Amino acid sequence: MKARAEKIPVGVLGATGAVGQRLVRMLADHPWFALRALAASDRSAGRPYAEATRWYLDEPLPDAARDLPVVPCEPAAMDVELVFSGLDAGVAGEIEERFAEAGMDVLTNARNHRMDADVPLIIPEVNADHLDLVDVQRARRGWTGSIVANANCSTIGLALALRPLQLTFGIQGVTVATLQALSGAGYPGVASLDVTDNVIPFVGGEEEKIQSETLKILGRLSGEAVEPESFPVSALVHRVPVRDGHLLAISVKLAERASPEDAVRAFEEFRGPEPVPGLPTSPARPIVVRSEPDRPQPRRDRMEGEGMSVVVGRVRPCPVLDLKFSALVHNTIRGAAGAAIQNAELLVAVRSGIQRSTVSLTTQGRAAPSAGP
Amino acid sequence: MKARAEKIPVGVLGATGAVGQRLVRMLADHPWFALRALAASDRSAGRPYAEATRWYLDEPLPDAARDLPVVPCEPAAMDVELVFSGLDAGVAGEIEERFAEAGMDVLTNARNHRMDADVPLIIPEVNADHLDLVDVQRARRGWTGSIVANANCSTIGLALALRPLQLTFGIQGVTVATLQALSGAGYPGVASLDVTDNVIPFVGGEEEKIQSETLKILGRLSGEAVEPESFPVSALVHRVPVRDGHLLAISVKLAERASPEDAVRAFEEFRGPEPVPGLPTSPARPIVVRSEPDRPQPRRDRMEGEGMSVVVGRVRPCPVLDLKFSALVHNTIRGAAGAAIQNAELLVAVRSGIQRSTVSLTTQGRAAPSAGP
Amino acid sequence: MKARAEKIPVGVLGATGAVGQRLVRMLADHPWFALRALAASDRSAGRPYAEATRWYLDEPLPDAARDLPVVPCEPAAMDVELVFSGLDAGVAGEIEERFAEAGMDVLTNARNHRMDADVPLIIPEVNADHLDLVDVQRARRGWTGSIVANANCSTIGLALALRPLQLTFGIQGVTVATLQALSGAGYPGVASLDVTDNVIPFVGGEEEKIQSETLKILGRLSGEAVEPESFPVSALVHRVPVRDGHLLAISVKLAERASPEDAVRAFEEFRGPEPVPGLPTSPARPIVVRSEPDRPQPRRDRMEGEGMSVVVGRVRPCPVLDLKFSALVHNTIRGAAGAAIQNAELLVAVRSGIQRSTVSLTTQGRAAPSAGP
Amino acid sequence: MKARAEKIPVGVLGATGAVGQRLVRMLADHPWFALRALAASDRSAGRPYAEATRWYLDEPLPDAARDLPVVPCEPAAMDVELVFSGLDAGVAGEIEERFAEAGMDVLTNARNHRMDADVPLIIPEVNADHLDLVDVQRARRGWTGSIVANANCSTIGLALALRPLQLTFGIQGVTVATLQALSGAGYPGVASLDVTDNVIPFVGGEEEKIQSETLKILGRLSGEAVEPESFPVSALVHRVPVRDGHLLAISVKLAERASPEDAVRAFEEFRGPEPVPGLPTSPARPIVVRSEPDRPQPRRDRMEGEGMSVVVGRVRPCPVLDLKFSALVHNTIRGAAGAAIQNAELLVAVRSGIQRSTVSLTTQGRAAPSAGP
Repeated sequence: MKARAEKIPVGVLGATGAVGQRLVRMLADHPWFALRALAASDRSAGRPYAEATRWYLDEPLPDAARDLPVVPCEPAAMDVELVFSGLDAGVAGEIEERFAEAGMDVLTNARNHRMDADVPLIIPEVNADHLDLVDVQRARRGWTGSIVANANCSTIGLALALRPLQLTFGIQGVTVATLQALSGAGYPGVASLDVTDNVIPFVGGEEEKIQSETLKILGRLSGEAVEPESFPVSALVHRVPVRDGHLLAISVKLAERASPEDAVRAFEEFRGPEPVPGLPTSPARPIVVRSEPDRPQPRRDRMEGEGMSVVVGRVRPCPVLDLKFSALVHNTIRGAAGAAIQNAELLVAVRSGIQRSTVSLTTQGRAAPSAGP
Repeated sequence: MKARAEKIPVGVLGATGAVGQRLVRMLADHPWFALRALAASDRSAGRPYAEATRWYLDEPLPDAARDLPVVPCEPAAMDVELVFSGLDAGVAGEIEERFAEAGMDVLTNARNHRMDADVPLIIPEVNADHLDLVDVQRARRGWTGSIVANANCSTIGLALALRPLQLTFGIQGVTVATLQALSGAGYPGVASLDVTDNVIPFVGGEEEKIQSETLKILGRLSGEAVEPESFPVSALVHRVPVRDGHLLAISVKLAERASPEDAVRAFEEFRGPEPVPGLPTSPARPIVVRSEPDRPQPRRDRMEGEGMSVVVGRVRPCPVLDLKFSALVHNTIRGAAGAAIQNAELLVAVRSGIQRSTVSLTTQGRAAPSAGP
Repeated sequence: MKARAEKIPVGVLGATGAVGQRLVRMLADHPWFALRALAASDRSAGRPYAEATRWYLDEPLPDAARDLPVVPCEPAAMDVELVFSGLDAGVAGEIEERFAEAGMDVLTNARNHRMDADVPLIIPEVNADHLDLVDVQRARRGWTGSIVANANCSTIGLALALRPLQLTFGIQGVTVATLQALSGAGYPGVASLDVTDNVIPFVGGEEEKIQSETLKILGRLSGEAVEPESFPVSALVHRVPVRDGHLLAISVKLAERASPEDAVRAFEEFRGPEPVPGLPTSPARPIVVRSEPDRPQPRRDRMEGEGMSVVVGRVRPCPVLDLKFSALVHNTIRGAAGAAIQNAELLVAVRSGIQRSTVSLTTQGRAAPSAGP
Repeated sequence: MKARAEKIPVGVLGATGAVGQRLVRMLADHPWFALRALAASDRSAGRPYAEATRWYLDEPLPDAARDLPVVPCEPAAMDVELVFSGLDAGVAGEIEERFAEAGMDVLTNARNHRMDADVPLIIPEVNADHLDLVDVQRARRGWTGSIVANANCSTIGLALALRPLQLTFGIQGVTVATLQALSGAGYPGVASLDVTDNVIPFVGGEEEKIQSETLKILGRLSGEAVEPESFPVSALVHRVPVRDGHLLAISVKLAERASPEDAVRAFEEFRGPEPVPGLPTSPARPIVVRSEPDRPQPRRDRMEGEGMSVVVGRVRPCPVLDLKFSALVHNTIRGAAGAAIQNAELLVAVRSGIQRSTVSLTTQGRAAPSAGP
């Protein structure tokens, strides 16, 4: 594998929204991708990005994006190879299809196509092999591009935390209570009057998504389809006054007995298949275990692995199922923008035949890969 | 039954602490009890209550308590029939025993004696009959007074919410994730720096208390002992930046199939045995069910029934166990001070033979009862 | 003066908004007014109020309003004598004029007409006499109804707190830094992501309003116009993560020397002219002074006088001007809905000739007044 | 000037406290200083730092400090040239004197010696020349070491923001209302129950400190003493639920007329005297001006210049004084630990004769300086 001479031109759909802003921020310095086009609703089109956007992130708006003109969400308006979609579900479905049809790869954070049988729903460390669905998708839909989805923010934290347990001990059931951050609702999102001195035991559609998406991600690719896992998942979701970082209280029933120490070992040894560990956005450790009795905490642990590690703690026996523990996922990085970007990296790496040459990847310092001879 | 000519003189142990303040506030206008003595650590003794206390409640310090001199926690210093204990567990155990030995009834919120075999752990609507343990306790310990305990704040919400399900369908297992308010840690309690933009997945000792106390409360009095319930309980606790009101996310496995509608009916019809509904501090409905998708919420629902009702919502099937729902309990009222006061009312009512004449009680407007002819 | 046989039928414009909801809540049990009509945007019209409203207050939606049909903001649609306007400034101006023209008295919280020369801007305790402008207004505009405005929420707290100082010592300059609550921005208002772990040194248009409205309120009615006060006012405003209660840090330059004790005496003795103290919504003390070093605080003091008292504290010398102190005003009660209602009471009382018979008013238990013989 | 071969060994007094932790964190990677000794109360002495400390910062405890044994606050226990003091005022006074007497330079954040006539109270960009007081101090007290103080956290932000105005236009009076962060009260500090849905118009002793320290800092060194500025300063302080970052609302009366644009220019051009701009901890711009109407905000602007820049915004005319504006200072970095460290750098640089060779300093990459030939 050789480093490509040039970065891959990419764009962002829904660039002025909350996920779009995080995408813009993370793509500004990306080693493989060059941010070239920013699309948003017609209302914003034509204005420079810095003007069209009510920037809500604390980190500054990157200079690389500041003066890019906002274009409409039309394939013809974006001369790029690959687009990231932070579009709202209300419009994402059809727009993303048009881009895939026009030959672009669409890395989407929207929920619309996640559960389509021929759309891979990917967490690279967990189910990189599901990416083969892209061939099925193209054949079936006659597309030269593709749609590759990442899951809901809570689901990503849950599925990633469950993966080592599934591989090592087998899983027969899962309950998860979530304490979800405000940024999960976008911007402006949750009214301050609703969460001052308050928490809310409800996030629209979230429990259903967690319960279905987790099983698809942890499922097995078999021929032209994913056979989802069959164990029951029960989610009880809450919104809490925290900016970023979804905290999950998880109980699992295992197929095979395991002590908390066994589980901690499985978490700590987990890495994910090649070429995932070498991707630019992959954290050194997908799961970081903390031993303090009161961790993970959203504010103190969300930036672990630059926001891409899931932080696990309080692993202990569960009197009802088998084990219980806490897991924390940065909802807008690992749970949204970072997820889409890592998926794009996986797609590019796999296409470049990088999986046969990962050693060279890491030694070459994470330059943009191209297919080797 | 006739109204007693005079109110019963009562005192508060640990009157300057967080639970003590709430006790003082709730006892200031009590129809049966007259607040006569306030005890605290030696450091405070001798000073007027208003001076010795760093009052933290938003409601004003009641005039009835303002000038009462703080006395030491000694039986000889308190000329009352009954004391409420808001003492810290570090000192509560022995002090409470001395008061019981000296002939006073001690209604305690401390954890020290809760799991003693001969100490009743009471939620009046749930297990008023456990109060018969007082006779066992007196016989065994040679006391003329007694110790009657209320449970941990989360446990009270959980056990009260579970009771109708236990009675109607039987319970085989429970998981509960808690989102607990700041006031549960007392005052000053949780540092603001720890919960700004943060939640904490830990409350010291809480999970163990929830798991054991719930089973004792829901157990059956059999001869001289309580036979605890035997189903497994698993608690996953969290501290959240809310002032008052513990929110519980509960899943239950039932012995007998029940739809959400069946469960709602059981919650709504639940009242508790006589004479509980007629006690001054008992709410009209021990459990209030809300039908909105996003309730109960701590700030909006905690004062239901003047803080003595548990508010239930989001009753729905659980894919792993059978049913799941949210329950909210005001942790310093129903979960602490109000619990101790309601227990005291039960004790007084039972001793007065009130259980045979509840109709007259309610018609007589809740005057302090005495045994009728 | 005799009590009127019947309550006065009233309506609310903008009834589904934040101020509208507070108006509905406060009018539900009003001794003089009967809530008969609720108007909102055409979108809501035709539906029962409980359905058309996203109720955000913690206090429950009053039963009296629940089933009232929402009507459009048209005079013909509301068969009432008097309307309260919680309309947004974007539409309030013209709609309110139509109601006044149609013969109704409009008590408005909107900013549109506040500074009109012939519109009285009233805080009853401060400038009840400005109500005479209604005659000027009617004559000039040919209306049979009228528009009577209350000021901006911060201004009301400021002007009320300044009034005793103005009367007793004279004022030559004022600086005020505000810490304003979230509810001042309406609902949904401020995004939670903007005020978590943050404060904002800006509220659109607020500084200008405080600087101009205060001077009109404290001005002198002279012939057909108000001659505004002429001292300079400088406001520095902030939004803080508090639900209700604007806290003001005020410094004043006085015409006549005064010690902090002198000022406290002026605050405490202040009552406002007859018939204001006897109005149903007037608090017993318009200004309550607290002596603790760390009061007033929004959460602990905002409900003083059922939200209608301004709470003052920390009165001390100012090294730059003369005196400085803190003042707290409940922004949606005294600062908005309660202000409009108290103004309406004043209007009704003055028309009933009640000012000549206040003693009988208060002894008659605040029944709706009518002109006596 | 040449780089010193070795870093200067330094220690921290009060290393387990809130300011101590920030000092440890900032010194861990310092280019000139090597952290060698950590002292705290006798209770902690003997244990490794990581064990003795309840680490509250979100950034991890640096490895360099983890295993350092905590020693008592005795000169004999610390073999270093220079100590930073994060001690509480209750004990700081005498301990710091013992260290100075023993020949060490003490860079203190405690208030005890700030107003001593022979102790320099330094903000390097403002009054680096006051450091000459060290000679007076040594002569007068017979010390071979010294005490150099930084001011109170709010004062530092205020005095730094005022300095360009003082130099350019002259100042005749200042009012400042503060919105101060929780970390200013140390850890655990403010109880969460006190600031949930609340702000507090009081910080003990703060107003006095702001009013006196500002004048000393802005004063003129004249012979053996500082002649403080003589204009009046009035502070009105508040605690708000923000983690870090004190926001100041400032009004100034100027000796010479200045438009907001004039003031902005003065802010932006301000740099401070040599060798200050070249010190390792000095930010590129001591004052950063933002032009948005709603900035500075604590959460979004506190890390400007790695927490060492003061961020100014909303510069506008003041109807009462002359100009008003907002300023933000990171209270534990520029306002405490970073201040002490920058002061130490100044002391070292001045002693090394660095002021005559600043160009070489910056080109040499900020290595530890030594006196050149």
